Amino acid sequence: MDILQYQSDFLAYLASKKTLKEPKNLYEPIDYILQIGGKRIRPMLTLMASDIFSGDYKKAMPAALAVEVFHNFTLVHDDIMDDAPLRRGHETVHEKWDINRGILSGDAMLILAYQYFENYEPIIFQKLAQLFSKTALEVCDGQQLDVDFETRNDVTIAQYIKMITLKTSVLVAAALKMGAIVANANEEQAQHLYNYGLHLGVAFQLQDDYLDTYGDPETFGKQVGGDIIENKKTYLYLKAFEVANTDDKEKLTTLYNNKQENKQENIQAKIATVSAIFTKNNIPEYTHQLIEYYTNKSFESLAHLNISDTAKSGLRLFAENLMSRKV
Amino acid sequence: MDILQYQSDFLAYLASKKTLKEPKNLYEPIDYILQIGGKRIRPMLTLMASDIFSGDYKKAMPAALAVEVFHNFTLVHDDIMDDAPLRRGHETVHEKWDINRGILSGDAMLILAYQYFENYEPIIFQKLAQLFSKTALEVCDGQQLDVDFETRNDVTIAQYIKMITLKTSVLVAAALKMGAIVANANEEQAQHLYNYGLHLGVAFQLQDDYLDTYGDPETFGKQVGGDIIENKKTYLYLKAFEVANTDDKEKLTTLYNNKQENKQENIQAKIATVSAIFTKNNIPEYTHQLIEYYTNKSFESLAHLNISDTAKSGLRLFAENLMSRKV
Repeated sequence: MDILQYQSDFLAYLASKKTLKEPKNLYEPIDYILQIGGKRIRPMLTLMASDIFSGDYKKAMPAALAVEVFHNFTLVHDDIMDDAPLRRGHETVHEKWDINRGILSGDAMLILAYQYFENYEPIIFQKLAQLFSKTALEVCDGQQLDVDFETRNDVTIAQYIKMITLKTSVLVAAALKMGAIVANANEEQAQHLYNYGLHLGVAFQLQDDYLDTYGDPETFGKQVGGDIIENKKTYLYLKAFEVANTDDKEKLTTLYNNKQENKQENIQAKIATVSAIFTKNNIPEYTHQLIEYYTNKSFESLAHLNISDTAKSGLRLFAENLMSRKV
Repeated sequence: MDILQYQSDFLAYLASKKTLKEPKNLYEPIDYILQIGGKRIRPMLTLMASDIFSGDYKKAMPAALAVEVFHNFTLVHDDIMDDAPLRRGHETVHEKWDINRGILSGDAMLILAYQYFENYEPIIFQKLAQLFSKTALEVCDGQQLDVDFETRNDVTIAQYIKMITLKTSVLVAAALKMGAIVANANEEQAQHLYNYGLHLGVAFQLQDDYLDTYGDPETFGKQVGGDIIENKKTYLYLKAFEVANTDDKEKLTTLYNNKQENKQENIQAKIATVSAIFTKNNIPEYTHQLIEYYTNKSFESLAHLNISDTAKSGLRLFAENLMSRKV
């Protein structure tokens, strides 16, 4: 089990699949978003899962690519919906081209993802496509809840965790289970690995929320403070709202409900005020505790897996690295 | 073979599948677009094909629904890209709600379409999903070419036919072939039916282009003159540009290149001038001739089908009705 090997092999495979197809205006944005980077966490998980259950990770390459292309499809469409200017330190697709190119290229990516499963025999194909469809719909549900929450003032932390489970975790979990499916693992074992991914995904998204406010603008890739600008009621906001005094709560409510004028100084002032309230109320500490809680829950699923101790350590280490990341 | 029976059974099946799912904001637009009507041509073709090859059309119901849901997905996303206000005489999804709802609901519909194939056993499932993915990507290619053509002045009639083949015909053809797949028809027979659909689809789209300018605003459902407003170089435009005198050509070029002010009187004047040029140059007659040419080509494929004469007559009649339609 060699994570770096998975990553470099996946990148080589990805490069070999550059579409270069016609019409150029449709496929150029697809190559662009897939080539500008990203951590490639999900495809690495697919390869790792396949390796663990069969000793063969290369067989899982098309499934890994499907997961990565799907993930990038969601980024392209979500960036339109969030009006986000930056992704991985580069212009988003709809900024570099236009919204129509973003919509249509995204659609094509969703279809391409399904096509990669055609590399497998019918029974594996159906299992993969079925898990993929279920997961993809859950991701849409999660995205819709995320949008809905922006204009609601009664979102609970439990509802927030449910939303990020749908929007983020189910894909991390499915990425792992797909590797298990390709490796012909039995359903019960595949499901334990899925559960490991499901909790890991929540921890991962909480870390992402943390970095969105506290990340280093030089390395983060997205706009630091983006969630604050977008009035996203992340765990940071919801927890602050739970523990803060009346004065801070009122400030938060006002800042997250008023449509600010879109001037750069207003935006910066809003980010500064909100993050000062978070810091004063120990939100970074609360967030780290919750990340640890979900990371530990993910480790509990490992106990049920009939795999070598080396493989278990590998899965543990992967999770720990993910949670100590800065980007 | 009873077309009206297919239609009413399909509508009952569709009604039984109303999603009514949560989050409401995601699924409400899906139910809306599927319930506001439409001719249901594609699903009827799937049922008819299955009936012809196996005598059982009900088995093809999930495949027929997949085709219809996919078709409606393309309408939702295309209407955003075209900024179209009306569809089937009702507000388009992005008009009734907003662009984000249109994007995300459309995405979910594309995934739902794949899910309907899960009703079939693995080998049929894979055949259907494979044909579907190939077709769906071709439809994206066609949509991109359609967008590209709007800003190009060198589009040939052959390129236009290629574009509408991708954007419209391949789905008509695939709808038929899916019915044949469900009915376990052999590949060669399924392909002949596909070819019948491919030519029929071109004829159908040419009829649509004709109606877009010459249809009755009371019954057409879309905005009459929509193609002219959007500077769409349809067959009507391209043929007019081929046969018209220098004066008319110049007028057409000017009208299709200037971004008009978006005032209602300017739009109406543009539609009136362009359609007068079309009429003066016998474009309706040329269009009808080409529709007949493609309809006849589709009939040629029928000769290769090992099906009853009654079934062949049914397919012929269906095509003839489609071409004499007013909506």
